[in-house]
Amino acid sequence: MVSEYMYAIGTAPSPIREFFELGRAKAQELGPENIFNLSLGAPAVPMPEEYRQELIRLMMEEDQVKLHTYTTTAGDEAARTAIAEDLNRRFGTSYTRANLYMTAGAAPAICAVLNAIRNSADEEIALLAPYFAAYNSMIKGARMKKLEIKLPEPDFRLDLEAIERALTPKTVGLIINSPNNPSGTIYPAGDLQKLGEILTRKSGEFGHVIYLISDEPYREVLLDDVEVPFTANFYKNTIICYSYSKSLSIAGERVGYVLIPSENEDFSRLYPAVAGAAGALGVSNAPSLFQKALAKCAHLHSDNELYKKNRDLLYKALTDMGYVCTYPHGTFYMMVKALEADDKAFCRRAAEMGLIFVPCSGFGWPGYVRVALCVPEDVAARSVAAFKKLKESYK
Amino acid sequence: MVSEYMYAIGTAPSPIREFFELGRAKAQELGPENIFNLSLGAPAVPMPEEYRQELIRLMMEEDQVKLHTYTTTAGDEAARTAIAEDLNRRFGTSYTRANLYMTAGAAPAICAVLNAIRNSADEEIALLAPYFAAYNSMIKGARMKKLEIKLPEPDFRLDLEAIERALTPKTVGLIINSPNNPSGTIYPAGDLQKLGEILTRKSGEFGHVIYLISDEPYREVLLDDVEVPFTANFYKNTIICYSYSKSLSIAGERVGYVLIPSENEDFSRLYPAVAGAAGALGVSNAPSLFQKALAKCAHLHSDNELYKKNRDLLYKALTDMGYVCTYPHGTFYMMVKALEADDKAFCRRAAEMGLIFVPCSGFGWPGYVRVALCVPEDVAARSVAAFKKLKESYK
Repeated sequence: MVSEYMYAIGTAPSPIREFFELGRAKAQELGPENIFNLSLGAPAVPMPEEYRQELIRLMMEEDQVKLHTYTTTAGDEAARTAIAEDLNRRFGTSYTRANLYMTAGAAPAICAVLNAIRNSADEEIALLAPYFAAYNSMIKGARMKKLEIKLPEPDFRLDLEAIERALTPKTVGLIINSPNNPSGTIYPAGDLQKLGEILTRKSGEFGHVIYLISDEPYREVLLDDVEVPFTANFYKNTIICYSYSKSLSIAGERVGYVLIPSENEDFSRLYPAVAGAAGALGVSNAPSLFQKALAKCAHLHSDNELYKKNRDLLYKALTDMGYVCTYPHGTFYMMVKALEADDKAFCRRAAEMGLIFVPCSGFGWPGYVRVALCVPEDVAARSVAAFKKLKESYK
Repeated sequence: MVSEYMYAIGTAPSPIREFFELGRAKAQELGPENIFNLSLGAPAVPMPEEYRQELIRLMMEEDQVKLHTYTTTAGDEAARTAIAEDLNRRFGTSYTRANLYMTAGAAPAICAVLNAIRNSADEEIALLAPYFAAYNSMIKGARMKKLEIKLPEPDFRLDLEAIERALTPKTVGLIINSPNNPSGTIYPAGDLQKLGEILTRKSGEFGHVIYLISDEPYREVLLDDVEVPFTANFYKNTIICYSYSKSLSIAGERVGYVLIPSENEDFSRLYPAVAGAAGALGVSNAPSLFQKALAKCAHLHSDNELYKKNRDLLYKALTDMGYVCTYPHGTFYMMVKALEADDKAFCRRAAEMGLIFVPCSGFGWPGYVRVALCVPEDVAARSVAAFKKLKESYK
């Protein structure tokens, strides 16, 4: 019989999908030129040219049997070495390829990690709201529970007291995501330091490790000259889940990794558990071609200038009109406070004016919406008039 | 704390890995030219040239933002349509893209399906031994039980009576794999017809559907002018898991699909349950580039001539020497009866002579070994002398 549990996950309403579909319908009604679809978090700039040239070179010059065959289970060795060296150079770490396990993006990385630290069905994973909506189904997939901790408006920085208060003896992991989808917030070093201290203290109190699972697909998507503190430098039991989806504009190609620092107190058991979970879930390797090109290109990232321009334009235009917005230093999202309590109703009214974005109730923070900045410049510019019309409709 | 369950999976001895590693060690000792590594099931011929050209064309000519962005969750629409049309043309079916869910190979496809039909931890998945070793961890990953049914020597065809006898009220699925890894056996239409009747009868008796999960990565790897009967045409509650790893020689690129025929009695719930499970496991899409090239290339497959030549050569040479072998019409494997009861000891003795292959105890059929035919022609040819030496050592 069909699994009730998986059927429920597969048919759960997705706010992103719902409003994306509404956008398609509105495009038919109003004409595509009158639709400003700010709903999807997909890169709007191409991959770095050097990476593209390397992919083409591999396809033209290399032995095609070797190029496209299975990599080792943990991923291509040269790519993992290049990634470790790039991290070491930038963050003062001393990783080797033995700390890395390649995955088909960050989602499988997180799923493998959740399963690797799970021992019973009543264990909790703490999420800091606002959080990426898909964590919900990943936690369900691992058959664990969610513990939601709300971060405060207007900038959604770490509320360390709230976190310390909320953790329970059932909490085995805390997911953070900085720069954050949807708020764009980057957690500063001082806060990460204190978070590490809290996790150390609470792990001691509860008698088991609380892992810090750091989901970092936006680590390289920076809109200002800001630093993203490297999470693993603040707490030894950190596991990093990374994706090249945004940093190399290859969201559809599915390349990422789990990084397990050797500092983890149970490293020699943790790494094989992640590998075991990845195998048992069918979370297979990232595609060989895209991995192998990383051996030369692990230091590259896409140009974020378009996202910055759109952020500058929309942040100024919207705050001038009186909207309350986050000021994202990273990611290509901005949170905007809805002009009524029901964020979904607000999104539906916006759609009438051709503006498509998604309610943050799906991200654990009702009352806000997520506006994606990863759109062509003219779409962002032309959307301003629609935001104005939307504001006026609430007078 | 690290999951005991996943740690056990991640550290379980893998016969394939063990003997592959032994091969590496022996290469150092005896010199690589004296090693005949017949352990790995990886394609030894390149992808079809037309597919390679299409991949390069996409990388050179297409809009790189659109090419590499997220496909829809179920996979690229044009690719799914092309796949459905290719199947319809060949097998007289009437699928559409709505029957297909793209996955990163067959392993994630199977994992998603197991989770999608699972309702409790005591449910069983029946395996027909000899079977692909990795099913073990997939079933564990879904937190289900394995029910092993042994097929008879020497050709490992379907033993319908044994299957009917073995199924229990806890059996919710039966995995078949034809052409079979490791035996190379193709199940004939008449047997599949009877298998379908048994599953229909037993489903009625038990009051729940027993799904036929057909794992078909070798459907296009045929060594003779033989037909592989299309499994879904014999039993309505069939779910097909496919991979292009072998048919297009892209094992490292991770492209496959779940095919759920609309004839499944609970199709409208089954498809979303598979999608839900895929999302919840982090079993994400196949890489966009390789999917999109399928829109034009779904009908192609790699040339199997090398595998056929190696089969012809090794089957004749080995049977002439007195070895008992299966005669594979499909796949690039042959099962060979070990010359002592302990297949692992036999593999270790063979390794002393430079011959590397894997014991079938990991495939549910101790006493045999799996010899891979996917090697350069000269490796197969030169291995004959080593097989002779091995045989003589048992006199």
